[in-house]
Amino acid sequence: MPFAAATADQRFVLDHVVRLDEIAAADRFAAASPDVIEAVLDGVAQFAAGEWAPLLRAGDTIGAKWTPDGVKMPAGFPEAYRAYVEGGWGTIGVDEQWGGQGLPFVVQAAVLETLGTANMAFALCPTLTVGAIEALAHHGSPEQQATYLPRLATGEWTGTMNLTEPQAGSDVGALRTTATPRGDGTFAIKGTKIFISFGDHDLADNIVHLVLARTPDAPAGTRGISLFLVPKVRLDGTPNDVRVVSIEHKMGLHASPTCVLSFGDHDDCRGELIGPEFGGIRAMFTMMNNARLNVGLQGVQSAEAATQAAVAYARDRVQGARDGRAAAIVEHADVRRMLLRMKAQTMAARALVYYACGQVDRATLGDARAKERLEIMTPLAKAHATDIGNEVASLGIQVHGGMGYVEETGAAQFFRDARITPIYEGTNGIQAADLVGRKLGLSNGGAFADLIADMRTEAQAPALVRLIDACEAVGRRLQGANADDRHAASYPFLTMLSVASCGWLMERQARVDGADRVKKVAAAFYLEQVVPEALGLEAAANADASVLYALPAEAF
Amino acid sequence: MPFAAATADQRFVLDHVVRLDEIAAADRFAAASPDVIEAVLDGVAQFAAGEWAPLLRAGDTIGAKWTPDGVKMPAGFPEAYRAYVEGGWGTIGVDEQWGGQGLPFVVQAAVLETLGTANMAFALCPTLTVGAIEALAHHGSPEQQATYLPRLATGEWTGTMNLTEPQAGSDVGALRTTATPRGDGTFAIKGTKIFISFGDHDLADNIVHLVLARTPDAPAGTRGISLFLVPKVRLDGTPNDVRVVSIEHKMGLHASPTCVLSFGDHDDCRGELIGPEFGGIRAMFTMMNNARLNVGLQGVQSAEAATQAAVAYARDRVQGARDGRAAAIVEHADVRRMLLRMKAQTMAARALVYYACGQVDRATLGDARAKERLEIMTPLAKAHATDIGNEVASLGIQVHGGMGYVEETGAAQFFRDARITPIYEGTNGIQAADLVGRKLGLSNGGAFADLIADMRTEAQAPALVRLIDACEAVGRRLQGANADDRHAASYPFLTMLSVASCGWLMERQARVDGADRVKKVAAAFYLEQVVPEALGLEAAANADASVLYALPAEAF
Repeated sequence: MPFAAATADQRFVLDHVVRLDEIAAADRFAAASPDVIEAVLDGVAQFAAGEWAPLLRAGDTIGAKWTPDGVKMPAGFPEAYRAYVEGGWGTIGVDEQWGGQGLPFVVQAAVLETLGTANMAFALCPTLTVGAIEALAHHGSPEQQATYLPRLATGEWTGTMNLTEPQAGSDVGALRTTATPRGDGTFAIKGTKIFISFGDHDLADNIVHLVLARTPDAPAGTRGISLFLVPKVRLDGTPNDVRVVSIEHKMGLHASPTCVLSFGDHDDCRGELIGPEFGGIRAMFTMMNNARLNVGLQGVQSAEAATQAAVAYARDRVQGARDGRAAAIVEHADVRRMLLRMKAQTMAARALVYYACGQVDRATLGDARAKERLEIMTPLAKAHATDIGNEVASLGIQVHGGMGYVEETGAAQFFRDARITPIYEGTNGIQAADLVGRKLGLSNGGAFADLIADMRTEAQAPALVRLIDACEAVGRRLQGANADDRHAASYPFLTMLSVASCGWLMERQARVDGADRVKKVAAAFYLEQVVPEALGLEAAANADASVLYALPAEAF
Repeated sequence: MPFAAATADQRFVLDHVVRLDEIAAADRFAAASPDVIEAVLDGVAQFAAGEWAPLLRAGDTIGAKWTPDGVKMPAGFPEAYRAYVEGGWGTIGVDEQWGGQGLPFVVQAAVLETLGTANMAFALCPTLTVGAIEALAHHGSPEQQATYLPRLATGEWTGTMNLTEPQAGSDVGALRTTATPRGDGTFAIKGTKIFISFGDHDLADNIVHLVLARTPDAPAGTRGISLFLVPKVRLDGTPNDVRVVSIEHKMGLHASPTCVLSFGDHDDCRGELIGPEFGGIRAMFTMMNNARLNVGLQGVQSAEAATQAAVAYARDRVQGARDGRAAAIVEHADVRRMLLRMKAQTMAARALVYYACGQVDRATLGDARAKERLEIMTPLAKAHATDIGNEVASLGIQVHGGMGYVEETGAAQFFRDARITPIYEGTNGIQAADLVGRKLGLSNGGAFADLIADMRTEAQAPALVRLIDACEAVGRRLQGANADDRHAASYPFLTMLSVASCGWLMERQARVDGADRVKKVAAAFYLEQVVPEALGLEAAANADASVLYALPAEAF
């Protein structure tokens, strides 16, 4: 399997989509000088190629294993993780006061992209640690921050997010795990959490579980949820009462152990409150919003990895003829259609996700408009980039033909690994609901109107202009629609607005002096062929819910 | 995993899309009386539910195994296969002179659909036998027919198709297997074939391999190919020199052993010519065209099975609230959007494939127009129905949320199994090339013009009328275009024409007196939401190849 980090495109997107120079102009991100960025991107590219990419297939074929002593990672992973810690790759985006490098979130995203393109399942571990760091940095007490952040920053300790329970998936408010005051300021945690990625492993000395639970007499639903910090190993070195009961047998992402965790089997699971009581849902969103961007980034990873593999295969595989001579399949028009689509969609997903990540940094710098832009872009980046990851991984199999269905080529792994990304961190349907439910109405619709206005200022391609107009009309209609009608249209609308955003950012890149030929051709393909497809969703986005509720549930 | 054959919809489609009464009015198909059809559909439904559906998961988790003594199927499969033979389910579509029931091809398709919805990998075995029967019935000598057809008809012996070699996949003409006259009228076969589905197994006493090979001094390319019959066990009971070297480790379809077969390792592999020397490619197309319809039918199987599982899960899984009360997820609008799309797409695929299968029977009855219609519909049925199978299986996972990614629910199996169908029997890209290369030009474009005219006569929904117009315009343009431009547009055009065909047939069904509410709602959804999406492909279908060739191969 070939692997090379997409550093050239990363840098181009940072320069011309994110406009990193504007962010680096602030004191807060003064560290992000062009030479530092270059060193970081090139360094992680080399590290990922040398240490993580070689473990890709073993991660899939061997996978993480549950044992009575906890989860064991495949051979090579602990060493490769240590190399990651020693290389300082975990510290990129962490504030300098906690031992981090203080670089922008978007630079950390680029680092995670490269790690995940090399080995997506493995990179999920640092990705989750980033979420835990965010939560503690925003909501932890000074003591908690001083105790946990330095070691989470290096990756010596890793983090998890414990939300889901068997009866509480998309409906987080239905969770039942309890947290009872122990009288010493700590809480006794009791309950079972499922789908906990890297909930146990042998990569690090400790795991910092962030756990949503209910205190006694808490109100029902999401308002009664608090966030707790539950270390696997207590600070005094004794094991906490947290047990990994099993790991899931999944279609892919085998190197990421998806754990069932049991807290407090022996009534001795100790946790500390993070932030105020009942502040759990707010803290969760701090973790989750940035985690959503990082899952969108996994869409970029799947797409980039699948594209590299398919291009290599298509250049190599001779089949049929062109101009009377035996030809590699890359010469055939329909294979080129697939490959160019893969490249264009990968670039589009990267532009969309990086753009949103850049808004995190702008918001950190106090830009209120960027904060709103981030809110509206987060569901698009999560859902659409993961949809792209899946589409591109499927095209990658198709380019390989029969060999794509045989596991040894690796094309199937990208496809299997990618399929979880539209599901976790809020299903893409939940993202669409978030877009039409909360985000369209932000600032009385001002956030949406601003986005449309910004796109319209730059857009030139006729189909893109039409799509922006269509998005505006649909969005305005949905702002006044009832909940069923809004939700009925939510997914087609999310796709339309995502493609419009991608088209806007692709066109912007193609206009740059010095944009290379691949970028210009990919942008042309995107604007001329992908954007018009999204216009085909207008009818669905304008339909009300009546057809969906024309049948009783039993008739399905 | 729930399973119930879709007999009600099958019957409805046979009545109103296929118009089976017209076919059964001919003496040749007099056996196809309404009560016989009902007995067949209900009978195979009961058989599949009782005998084949229960083996679905073992087929996936255990799978077919290679051993030094040949391929062993998982426990239960040999018995379930014997029950299939004893039930006479293999004989449905075979001519009465060979012990068959002489029912129409489309009725056999309905039987295969039910078997494959219960267990797609298993049903591939009878599907391949059907292809061997077709080839022998059309091209075999009377002796060959008398010897092989009765036992292939019952399924006591099974059939295979041996086309692919490592260097000869989509480019069949590149094959190198040799057939040298042995002086006694038979040929010594020598070569290696790959991707041979059910190339070995322990279900039947013998396997009849149909093998494409080159005689000495044969011309290069497809013109020099002949078809040979190579039994696993010779008629005298001695083993032939055919060896299964390995089976593939595939992403899915684990109960279908995909074999590497070595013919003539000991220079003692004996085969007999079927049809004339160099008649191989013609005979192959006899097998392959109907096999393509049967692969399209696998798209229906994937879609039907995935839909049933998703509907059952969505009715059962309580999450969130509606109207202030806890609700099963089937009540949520975006879940309904997914489920209704799954149902509508499944019905559309069934209508498309059955319609094409009905043309096989009309052509058998001497209807020349039906023969042309069949030719133009075959690539649509194969490619678009398998694309639907994949889309619906993916939606099935999404409806299951995180549980869809866990193998135990079975949703992932449908998704993994389905992924081969756009690849084998000619990749969907090859189907698109066939559509724009050969089929658009049939009878100087008359076959295409007839299809457009038939659709236009019935179509009423505004978006459908627009789509038919768009298809006509694109098709006419492509008839005069150069090869690169034709191929560049081939896939979007194939999808547009397929959706137009499905829309036409869905609308026809919705108009029927007595169409049930599910059909009417599914048709409305299809016409109002799916058809407009295909209009979004018009820009791609009207683009020439220039953007695809704007980059050199090395730039990808």
